[in-house]
Amino acid sequence: MSTLAPASGKRATTREMILEHAYAIAIRDGLEGLSIGSLALDVGMSKSGVFAHFGSREDLQLAVLELGQRRFLEQVKWPALQLPRGLARLRAIVGRWVDWVQEYQSGCVLQTAASEYDGREGVLHDAVVKQQSGWRQEMCRTVTQAIDNGELAADIEARQLAFEINALMLGLHHDAALFGFDEARRHVLAAFERLLASCSPAASGRNPS
Amino acid sequence: MSTLAPASGKRATTREMILEHAYAIAIRDGLEGLSIGSLALDVGMSKSGVFAHFGSREDLQLAVLELGQRRFLEQVKWPALQLPRGLARLRAIVGRWVDWVQEYQSGCVLQTAASEYDGREGVLHDAVVKQQSGWRQEMCRTVTQAIDNGELAADIEARQLAFEINALMLGLHHDAALFGFDEARRHVLAAFERLLASCSPAASGRNPS
Repeated sequence: MSTLAPASGKRATTREMILEHAYAIAIRDGLEGLSIGSLALDVGMSKSGVFAHFGSREDLQLAVLELGQRRFLEQVKWPALQLPRGLARLRAIVGRWVDWVQEYQSGCVLQTAASEYDGREGVLHDAVVKQQSGWRQEMCRTVTQAIDNGELAADIEARQLAFEINALMLGLHHDAALFGFDEARRHVLAAFERLLASCSPAASGRNPS
Repeated sequence: MSTLAPASGKRATTREMILEHAYAIAIRDGLEGLSIGSLALDVGMSKSGVFAHFGSREDLQLAVLELGQRRFLEQVKWPALQLPRGLARLRAIVGRWVDWVQEYQSGCVLQTAASEYDGREGVLHDAVVKQQSGWRQEMCRTVTQAIDNGELAADIEARQLAFEINALMLGLHHDAALFGFDEARRHVLAAFERLLASCSPAASGRNPS
């Protein structure tokens, strides 16, 4: 933090404005597409002006990743928590997640970051793993609640089902971006319904998972 | 092609050598991580020497994408074609695809390219769409043959099942890179078996797809 920093209110607003610009760039070019120099040009500030708010390129990338996560949770998780625990909530999460993919068809910061940092070591890799792992645990919790409610079969492994739902959303993102959203949404919703049907208590013992 | 080009045999060997280096870089950094300058340093040639083999950065990126596709087909498709049409071939494709993901855990050029170019227009975007679309058609053909054999239910939609299998492989790639390969493989194989079971002729009419 610079000792010449302006009053905290204005400072926070400027930081927020820079972050929004950075978020828009990262949607298009990924977190690796961010540079303090071109961001400074973009927002009409000096490089040192941007550095006063984000100490390094890495700090900026982490802040953008955090903003993406906050937006995802605001759009997907928190509204779904208004629904009863279990299957109703799981359906709400998937429905809102589909809407999220539609909104960020040209690039979801979280999804792109997973692809950018999966094979690298470092602070950003660790942040991506933590973010993805936290969300997977949320999914497992919701699946477990549906099992506890008797809405899904008792022998369903929550981590397995959470993996499969996540895979379907990756498939939606992939197909929506390359082949168009509408068919991809139709595929993902049909797959989700078949997956739930194969995990229903009535189907228990019928299938190999 | 330069009129000063060496004899075609040596020329082809040099091109191949440069391409292998570029492929290794793209595995780590994506096709967007390629630059003629740093590649030239890497292979101990001048920039103009590399340009004599690849007219532009984009030509180089396209050549690396093509190499990735050729390797994928060599490792996954061609061996699976040795098996009888239908379910046996579908299982062979999925098994070899899982091995492919294991080999390229730190980065598959094809997968990364899909994420890099999905939201952009241009020659590379078009090449990625063509590659992904061609492979999806191959998958549809194999699924259709399994339906024709009576190994999968007659009411299965080939494009739907091909979407779901592709999604599972994206899930494998994602989880293997972030959380470790072994659990991800266990999840994807269990999911594939359940998917096949839900598409078996015996299961027809039972589930919503």
